[in-house]
Amino acid sequence: MTGMLTIAGLGPGDEALVTPEVSAAIADATDIVGYAPYVARVAARGGLVAHASDNRQESQRATEAIRLAAEGRRVVVVSSGDPGVFAMAAAVFEALEGSPQWHGLAIRVLPGVTAMLAAAARVGAPLGHDFCAINLSDNLKPWSTIEKRLRLAAEADFAIALYNPRSASRPEGFARALEILKEAGCGARIMIFAHAVTTPNERIEALPLRDARPEMADMRTLVIVGNSTTRRIGRWIYAPRRAS
Amino acid sequence: MTGMLTIAGLGPGDEALVTPEVSAAIADATDIVGYAPYVARVAARGGLVAHASDNRQESQRATEAIRLAAEGRRVVVVSSGDPGVFAMAAAVFEALEGSPQWHGLAIRVLPGVTAMLAAAARVGAPLGHDFCAINLSDNLKPWSTIEKRLRLAAEADFAIALYNPRSASRPEGFARALEILKEAGCGARIMIFAHAVTTPNERIEALPLRDARPEMADMRTLVIVGNSTTRRIGRWIYAPRRAS
Repeated sequence: MTGMLTIAGLGPGDEALVTPEVSAAIADATDIVGYAPYVARVAARGGLVAHASDNRQESQRATEAIRLAAEGRRVVVVSSGDPGVFAMAAAVFEALEGSPQWHGLAIRVLPGVTAMLAAAARVGAPLGHDFCAINLSDNLKPWSTIEKRLRLAAEADFAIALYNPRSASRPEGFARALEILKEAGCGARIMIFAHAVTTPNERIEALPLRDARPEMADMRTLVIVGNSTTRRIGRWIYAPRRAS
Repeated sequence: MTGMLTIAGLGPGDEALVTPEVSAAIADATDIVGYAPYVARVAARGGLVAHASDNRQESQRATEAIRLAAEGRRVVVVSSGDPGVFAMAAAVFEALEGSPQWHGLAIRVLPGVTAMLAAAARVGAPLGHDFCAINLSDNLKPWSTIEKRLRLAAEADFAIALYNPRSASRPEGFARALEILKEAGCGARIMIFAHAVTTPNERIEALPLRDARPEMADMRTLVIVGNSTTRRIGRWIYAPRRAS
């Protein structure tokens, strides 16, 4: 058996958003590696070994997946959303970089529907004009870098998708992000909180940024801040294609 | 028959990247509306009416789709990639805004794999850290806005995905964008040209931005400019998760 390492995105939660390419890779796999709630999304079957791990264990998980593939297994590393957006793909390449003996390994990355696209679709088209995506977790980058990017994104008048806005271990960052965006003149912008989007627990709120409260977000929330022209029409929110 | 307007993303080209949700919507449709090359991706069948139109006719196409759905048809507007990213969803909501008699229409937006995610997956994980997406077409926004966003994106050290980089009718903009990014100190950054990604005509090039030539891009090219830490490891390109 020739080993293969596939890094696949399961989409935001709804199985109807898993691409056929990813479903085929899973059907052909011998091993599934990932954060436990994502591994749990893959149906058990004879001959398929599940390797579930905790959150914040990306590096160990990546190394384990590489090692299994190097042994000849057909390994699928599963991420929520798209594996290349604040997910496992970068962690795998980091692990690979430190391990030259594995540089010849067969690897492929299979894209998926990332959370901001699913959240945007639910409310209309708030990412229909230029936008950016910022991971608010400061586990791996200084908070000052996040602050700088928020200020520049506001100045550029990007719509802003915020991933991992708030967790129990870092409750303050998102409150600070709201303050920064208010200081940057974004108080009147429409802010969207999309919780557990496309799952049975989906809950979506939209309100002016100045009225948003930090506790509206948790780690299962994808936040979108509209740009200065984003508007509502009935229940829909969208960014017009024209800009001045 | 109750009318329904569905705005769906077909993904970047490979049929294995069309979500089951979108396939089901197409199977249930009475009418397909879209730019001719995207309508051509939907298999013909009895009872399905295809309404293909030219590029740059987004507003007329949106109005036609709304009108058909208001008459009771099950209409699917097809976009390449994700319908909310520089595609038809915003055009439909613009048309809806101008037509209050249609505000009660049943509408849904179905997300898809947008080109930058597919391009990123092909080369590794260049969008694994904070990033932005900019539409380089100045049909609907002034070029000065594009320039400002490019400069701020460089200052923020975002990876930058450039959609619609260059067309026959606007050959100069992309050359100017390259100059701006060089002036902003991005000459050493890795630049990726992903042409017709996931199709039989796929062609991918990667090189330092300072060596890029404008004619490397056309309207079927998705361009990604790495951030300052993006690096190569063998044939792969990725943005490390850590930043300073």
